[in-house]
Amino acid sequence: MIKIGIVGGTGYTGVELLRLLAGHPQAHVRAITSRKDAGTRVADMFPSLRGRYDLSFTDPESADLASCNVVFFATPHGVAMAQARELLAAGVRIVDLAADFRLKDPAVFEKWYGIPHTCPDLLAEAAYGLPELNRAAIAKARIVANPGCYPTTMQLGFAPLLEAGVVDAGRLIADCKSGVSGGGRKAELGLLFAEAADSFRAYSVNGHRHHPETLLQLARFSAAPVGLVFTPHLVPMIRGMHSTLYAEITRKDVDLQALFEQRYAGEAFVDVLPPGSMPDTRSVRASNMLRIAIHQPPGSNLVMLLVVQDNLVKGASGQAVQCMNLMFGLPETTGLSALPVLP
Amino acid sequence: MIKIGIVGGTGYTGVELLRLLAGHPQAHVRAITSRKDAGTRVADMFPSLRGRYDLSFTDPESADLASCNVVFFATPHGVAMAQARELLAAGVRIVDLAADFRLKDPAVFEKWYGIPHTCPDLLAEAAYGLPELNRAAIAKARIVANPGCYPTTMQLGFAPLLEAGVVDAGRLIADCKSGVSGGGRKAELGLLFAEAADSFRAYSVNGHRHHPETLLQLARFSAAPVGLVFTPHLVPMIRGMHSTLYAEITRKDVDLQALFEQRYAGEAFVDVLPPGSMPDTRSVRASNMLRIAIHQPPGSNLVMLLVVQDNLVKGASGQAVQCMNLMFGLPETTGLSALPVLP
Amino acid sequence: MIKIGIVGGTGYTGVELLRLLAGHPQAHVRAITSRKDAGTRVADMFPSLRGRYDLSFTDPESADLASCNVVFFATPHGVAMAQARELLAAGVRIVDLAADFRLKDPAVFEKWYGIPHTCPDLLAEAAYGLPELNRAAIAKARIVANPGCYPTTMQLGFAPLLEAGVVDAGRLIADCKSGVSGGGRKAELGLLFAEAADSFRAYSVNGHRHHPETLLQLARFSAAPVGLVFTPHLVPMIRGMHSTLYAEITRKDVDLQALFEQRYAGEAFVDVLPPGSMPDTRSVRASNMLRIAIHQPPGSNLVMLLVVQDNLVKGASGQAVQCMNLMFGLPETTGLSALPVLP
Amino acid sequence: MIKIGIVGGTGYTGVELLRLLAGHPQAHVRAITSRKDAGTRVADMFPSLRGRYDLSFTDPESADLASCNVVFFATPHGVAMAQARELLAAGVRIVDLAADFRLKDPAVFEKWYGIPHTCPDLLAEAAYGLPELNRAAIAKARIVANPGCYPTTMQLGFAPLLEAGVVDAGRLIADCKSGVSGGGRKAELGLLFAEAADSFRAYSVNGHRHHPETLLQLARFSAAPVGLVFTPHLVPMIRGMHSTLYAEITRKDVDLQALFEQRYAGEAFVDVLPPGSMPDTRSVRASNMLRIAIHQPPGSNLVMLLVVQDNLVKGASGQAVQCMNLMFGLPETTGLSALPVLP
Repeated sequence: MIKIGIVGGTGYTGVELLRLLAGHPQAHVRAITSRKDAGTRVADMFPSLRGRYDLSFTDPESADLASCNVVFFATPHGVAMAQARELLAAGVRIVDLAADFRLKDPAVFEKWYGIPHTCPDLLAEAAYGLPELNRAAIAKARIVANPGCYPTTMQLGFAPLLEAGVVDAGRLIADCKSGVSGGGRKAELGLLFAEAADSFRAYSVNGHRHHPETLLQLARFSAAPVGLVFTPHLVPMIRGMHSTLYAEITRKDVDLQALFEQRYAGEAFVDVLPPGSMPDTRSVRASNMLRIAIHQPPGSNLVMLLVVQDNLVKGASGQAVQCMNLMFGLPETTGLSALPVLP
Repeated sequence: MIKIGIVGGTGYTGVELLRLLAGHPQAHVRAITSRKDAGTRVADMFPSLRGRYDLSFTDPESADLASCNVVFFATPHGVAMAQARELLAAGVRIVDLAADFRLKDPAVFEKWYGIPHTCPDLLAEAAYGLPELNRAAIAKARIVANPGCYPTTMQLGFAPLLEAGVVDAGRLIADCKSGVSGGGRKAELGLLFAEAADSFRAYSVNGHRHHPETLLQLARFSAAPVGLVFTPHLVPMIRGMHSTLYAEITRKDVDLQALFEQRYAGEAFVDVLPPGSMPDTRSVRASNMLRIAIHQPPGSNLVMLLVVQDNLVKGASGQAVQCMNLMFGLPETTGLSALPVLP
Repeated sequence: MIKIGIVGGTGYTGVELLRLLAGHPQAHVRAITSRKDAGTRVADMFPSLRGRYDLSFTDPESADLASCNVVFFATPHGVAMAQARELLAAGVRIVDLAADFRLKDPAVFEKWYGIPHTCPDLLAEAAYGLPELNRAAIAKARIVANPGCYPTTMQLGFAPLLEAGVVDAGRLIADCKSGVSGGGRKAELGLLFAEAADSFRAYSVNGHRHHPETLLQLARFSAAPVGLVFTPHLVPMIRGMHSTLYAEITRKDVDLQALFEQRYAGEAFVDVLPPGSMPDTRSVRASNMLRIAIHQPPGSNLVMLLVVQDNLVKGASGQAVQCMNLMFGLPETTGLSALPVLP
Repeated sequence: MIKIGIVGGTGYTGVELLRLLAGHPQAHVRAITSRKDAGTRVADMFPSLRGRYDLSFTDPESADLASCNVVFFATPHGVAMAQARELLAAGVRIVDLAADFRLKDPAVFEKWYGIPHTCPDLLAEAAYGLPELNRAAIAKARIVANPGCYPTTMQLGFAPLLEAGVVDAGRLIADCKSGVSGGGRKAELGLLFAEAADSFRAYSVNGHRHHPETLLQLARFSAAPVGLVFTPHLVPMIRGMHSTLYAEITRKDVDLQALFEQRYAGEAFVDVLPPGSMPDTRSVRASNMLRIAIHQPPGSNLVMLLVVQDNLVKGASGQAVQCMNLMFGLPETTGLSALPVLP
């Protein structure tokens, strides 16, 4: 059994980790922390967990995280980097679901997150936790930076095109739509039901934190400089993410459908759909699956990808468990094989 | 492995059966029928099942149901009774998710369902499939009548009170609220998103088919005649059912919280909540759990129960799997232990 | 033109007042206050108002409310009573959408609202602002206590039955369901989209502030003492309220349909539906209409009423404008005749 | 008073016409037809209209449309062209909310709509009913082809850029999102609440009927050939449309914000938002307003427009009333000045 600690378990990625780990045969969650809710039983805050978790939230200071094999940070940005060094010294491996280890340049981190990076030396060491594109590094990493939700869809969509050199890397467009849970479990006016329901809008169009992360990662796959316009939108649904990706084709001789099918052959969690498909987000709801459909709009020179995932699973906690499986030598699908919930 | 056939798999209870059975270690779905969609791959109609089901829908006539150990009917009313005799003769056991075997009196059936009952002799034999109230009969039954969604909540709520003789059986009120999937996967105006979203209404208040079923079953637990006002409402949510049950207390010396806790002690799928609880339906979303909270409104002589379940799981397909487990001597929770999906 | 001030305009009842008053031919909104958002243009906070309101929120201290003819308080409880005396002295009339003047006994107010009442002498003077049941008093009042949303439905439903003495006043049940906007525009976890969507729950079942208000008002119509069980529930919709009311019939010779039709004949905003109706809340969305259907569940001795309104209009701001019309001698429907928005 | 007939009033554009015309001081709806529901009172089908419409649906044959001043067709495609000639001969003017008169080439019509055009001679005569771009022609037209919902947003967005010649006309991208009411009030599985709620998907990506219409109209504003990729998506909301439009800037010296502000100066129903705005669809809910925000994504050469409208109002019935106002010499805003409903 893998002894697991979770720092900051009161948000949506935290409760989703608990849900997934409850069905994982090798996982034993020993501690879950929350400064604000220390003493509260986890199942009292989230009655969906009743009967399966006896744990209470504990104060971060008193949690015995050092005796865990791995600690997940389901926290706001800035928490993981404050505790990473001590945990690593104790031999604990880390999966950070926040952004502390996603970027490589501390200056870029500070620019986008507004705080200085406190352990820049660890940035180089951290593995970016997107298994399909970085499996080997994750398997041996001490620190894994779990990707952002949007970047997972953009990379799994654009990477095969960039690798193959078949599109204009400098003019990518990602028109992305996310369910409201992507905004986190925090009391903000804009996330209220009466504000977000029965409505639709774009947000952060002039700069979203997932932009530099995606650019950095996509550059690994592209000989040419990458240019990306990224437009996030808020959809009145709880979970789910749909990224509509556009790129201009530069080599018309390549069978794009085949390209994707070959690139992701053997991947358990990337489903390249048959030609003509238009996936809905509910087709992956509550599962770790990501589905991609490849289109070439008639009368244009574009390839358009439709990519769906559950932002809390493949976009966050499920991917974190997938990384953990890799880190501990387990089959990658362990604990992640539940089918999507439809309807 | 239990060899399983599903008749009528294109509705919500059908696809939910497929989802649940995919995670059941002893289940092997061999055939699934649909007259209208024969030849269509199951995973093409429900992409959430891609990669897990290679089956196609087959015509009912050509499906080899007779070689199954059990056949689930996820059909409109009237189908199961037409095929039951032949299947039983072949040694196949039956779980009917429709109403064909829920009532005992063929005349009552005809009155409420508008068609004559074609095998009234089997009505007596059929076991009512509510395990917590009828476990022994289910275990040995050849035919199980899976309860309606509303009746499950009303019975698990009212039965302990009636058994103990602590309420006025003649004046029960059930104010019930269901998600829209309860209306089935059929093209009806009233079930359209643009009709049902952002709105709330009662329906069938002058007679719902679940009324006679509930009265019949509740009578088993009551010395006095049972009177029930049952008001169903439609909630703009996909899954979930919340029944608010009212009864007048006739014996004030009984600790009702203790009564329920004792009645359901040891039950895996009935969760008696601590005093003061107000469960939300999402606390059971996509799981087979049913939760009950017991209240005594101040200044009144009433007991009020708040009962929640997922109408497609404990209210339909999950309960059917629970019955199957009983019928085949498996632990009742086999394949049903996934936690609710929250948020 | 009526010169109007609004105190506390950043909530849902405030913006709804602005929407309704923009279509009112005699209304001129001169000032709208918000301590927190002073200086912000109203149309910047609520872009739906762009082009129609040039106003900015002003600090309560600097707003010239004393020169208004009427001031609406769309504030939390406790604000109106702090400013009432000064405004009245200046000849300004008051409509309070909060609870400061809804109860008559300062001790009861303090018990339910947790703060002492600071002008108990004005409690006696204030008119309860439910025009259909209290028209004359409102017309001449200096202070109108606009009713709570739930109480409006409960009173307009139960009052005719109590007046006529046809039901058991001591055992009323109100099973009520409200859209999420009823919780206000405030950053609370429980009101988040990802918490409230696709789910349903009861809340405040052991004591809601609208309970004493309703009891107090219903007593006016009943010879016998009134007993009421009131169960509020939260529906995943923005606007709308559906109250399902139950009472035991004590006089069977009365035609209840006729009773309601006569009671509300001539009322512009109470629509007694034909027998057999089951109104949906969207049938009144964004309008000041309240609809009632009368049912007698078969096999019971109960009358059941289905009452729908828009909680922000007839349940709050529309009713406040209706009261203002009465107070200033205008036709009661002035500015309130827009049809519901459906779908 | 304008004497008005409505053909096909049982869909969403029909009931929306009735809602809007009820508030129009010069409108008198004399007849509304429906073959299937002839004899049904309009207010029985749509209780939101109770008390305001005494009309019943009549059979198309018996409706005295010839005595109307204008007839709106809120029908499926193919109906208006069958009745147009006769009505015109009787001196009746026509506003068709379907597509019969939107295209100019009968062959193109037949290709996209699958039926031959039965009065191609009238195609040339019909005015395209987008007042902001075609005001003069509408005012004197006998037949107005009311635009599709998506085309309205795409044209009002792209036209100023094409007119000014500041973007590459050959590579426009429109990533559009619509509420479910856009699919019409018809019993289709894909429009069910349990199918469309809490999910998001693209549809018709390889060819939507609004594509040729938009291309045809945009060509009027562009010297260069127009190329357009148009991707419609379905949003789990009732009303509302959000089009995210991308174009590549070819002339960097032009102030695009000023361009739009000048282009739409004086327009009552096009609101050019301040720089940095990200409108939500609810900011125009139930109103005839369309709002546009202009962005230039950092690090790119693109202009991105965010355009919102209510698909049933400015995208359909409101625009039709706006056209009627023009046709009859009324102020364009008559009956269309109600503020959006928020929340």
